[in-house]
Amino acid sequence: MSSSEIERLIQLLAKLPGLGPRSARRATLYLIKRRDSHLNSLAEAMINAGASVHPCHVCGNLDSGDPCGICADDRRQSSSICVVEDIADLWALERTASYRGVYHVLGGTLSALDNRGPEELKINTLVGRVAEGGVSEVILATSATVEGQTTAHYIIDRLEELRLSIDADFNVSRLAQGVPIGGELEYLDDGTLSAALKARRPV
Amino acid sequence: MSSSEIERLIQLLAKLPGLGPRSARRATLYLIKRRDSHLNSLAEAMINAGASVHPCHVCGNLDSGDPCGICADDRRQSSSICVVEDIADLWALERTASYRGVYHVLGGTLSALDNRGPEELKINTLVGRVAEGGVSEVILATSATVEGQTTAHYIIDRLEELRLSIDADFNVSRLAQGVPIGGELEYLDDGTLSAALKARRPV
Repeated sequence: MSSSEIERLIQLLAKLPGLGPRSARRATLYLIKRRDSHLNSLAEAMINAGASVHPCHVCGNLDSGDPCGICADDRRQSSSICVVEDIADLWALERTASYRGVYHVLGGTLSALDNRGPEELKINTLVGRVAEGGVSEVILATSATVEGQTTAHYIIDRLEELRLSIDADFNVSRLAQGVPIGGELEYLDDGTLSAALKARRPV
Repeated sequence: MSSSEIERLIQLLAKLPGLGPRSARRATLYLIKRRDSHLNSLAEAMINAGASVHPCHVCGNLDSGDPCGICADDRRQSSSICVVEDIADLWALERTASYRGVYHVLGGTLSALDNRGPEELKINTLVGRVAEGGVSEVILATSATVEGQTTAHYIIDRLEELRLSIDADFNVSRLAQGVPIGGELEYLDDGTLSAALKARRPV
């Protein structure tokens, strides 16, 4: 390889999640061969996104407006707040098109290993939003991992304190755990199966 | 998802080879969260590469200079031309650092299915380079696929014609076929194994 411009492009692409050096080389060749149709428009899309997209000061979602499109949407129920770890989780829930409330992005999970305490996450702002009133339900949609569940427990404790101190009336719920749609029992892990059994529902 | 700028970036990234919609979303979030350190420099690297990198008029390699760094390098033997299908193959051979001649990039393979005949490939320019004289060896480094081997056979025929018409003196060779380094016999396909047996060498 010879050109330093090509080398630099490969190096930067290789840092993206999901791409390694080999696929970065393929992507670079693909882009340079499609200079007009793809390379320039991708560079432009990056500059546009970098210039216009910012975190929403209310929920932490990324959008070109602040507050974001979800927080600003009158048709969404601002009385229901769904708490997620990351924006990718918010996107995943939005793709289901089955939730009509608003969100709160924590920005990660509590993690002793990574030295991430409550101050690193947007937990105080969540408690603040609930304390302002008008919230009837907080849905904890953190991941079903040890860190996600620890974070959920911590938030439950904080909201319990709040409930006692301001005499507010709101529910706290968590995502159901069980057999995923399309899941075959034979291939499910023991934890999921025993959670599904414990949370069995009358038909 | 809400912002059209984010949507557009995801769409364009998802078209890159090796990335799908899911990894494009991850890459987009990664980039927007690293606006200064990564997103802007990647966009800049793309624009630089797009503006400065062009195909070499001699061999077809991509470089910021024309002729490219390899063709312009005096230390490389211009008497040896290695014929490859694509620039990715040239890069792969360069990484081995075991070839000191120059290259000729065909731009693909002959393919009846894809309606790609000899005119679509840079075969005439290859024959022209050899006809100019000063070439002592042409190494055919096309892939060991049906298309790659068909292309190699066609080039061999064309070079044979040339040899008769101009009474030139050059060798034509092909990459060796056999057991790849680190390959375990048990897991090799029959074709490779029988090729390795046929091409066995005295020790």
